[in-house]
Amino acid sequence: MRGEIPCHRVYEDSLVFAFLDINPIAEGHTLVVPKEPATTLDQLSDESAAAIGRVLPRICRAVMQATGTAAYNVLQNNGALAHQAVMHVHFHIIPRPSELKGLGIRWPAGNLSHDVGQKLARRMAELLGA
Amino acid sequence: MRGEIPCHRVYEDSLVFAFLDINPIAEGHTLVVPKEPATTLDQLSDESAAAIGRVLPRICRAVMQATGTAAYNVLQNNGALAHQAVMHVHFHIIPRPSELKGLGIRWPAGNLSHDVGQKLARRMAELLGA
Repeated sequence: MRGEIPCHRVYEDSLVFAFLDINPIAEGHTLVVPKEPATTLDQLSDESAAAIGRVLPRICRAVMQATGTAAYNVLQNNGALAHQAVMHVHFHIIPRPSELKGLGIRWPAGNLSHDVGQKLARRMAELLGA
Repeated sequence: MRGEIPCHRVYEDSLVFAFLDINPIAEGHTLVVPKEPATTLDQLSDESAAAIGRVLPRICRAVMQATGTAAYNVLQNNGALAHQAVMHVHFHIIPRPSELKGLGIRWPAGNLSHDVGQKLARRMAELLGA
């Protein structure tokens, strides 16, 4: 981030830095980080978050072209319980070249009842002032 | 997206729409989508991608407050091989209340050799014009 750690840089602008993960789960596994110090996404400024959002499609296209992979995942973990290992906001771009490489997920899907959904959505909409 | 499907809306602006996933993998599982039609993130305009990025921290805070969960994952899947089931760009915000609820991941980490990393990063930086 401040030039202390040797890394394979792929992109940089005034707010955003991107480099290759040194422990990739697939070739081309890339990290996109804000320069702003923040541990989790909820703590990041709107400006830095927008800057990352804006450049993500471009970096995804570069990952796809450089690796020849069509499928990929973007993952951003917040908190140790949610698999965050480095305590600075980072977005993973992870190519998915095959069933055996890249991100495998466990997806314990349930069902949302109308009542629970309505109550929860209203509370969130209130919090968002929407 | 066009009002055809009943849903529990939590947020909307001119470019972005957010609602509860009807098959949540944890309470508060929320989807954030661009109004712009695009199948995968690499196909999305910079403007829509920036708009989603900008509002993600706010929506994450609302999910955290409404569910009382500190840890969470943001996941965006591109391509059936990468677990994409609905062919319109969407970001999942998934609370991680415990080891048993929310997103479980398989993380087959390897090591990036200096030579491979240098070559790949140079190629991507060229593609990104950085």
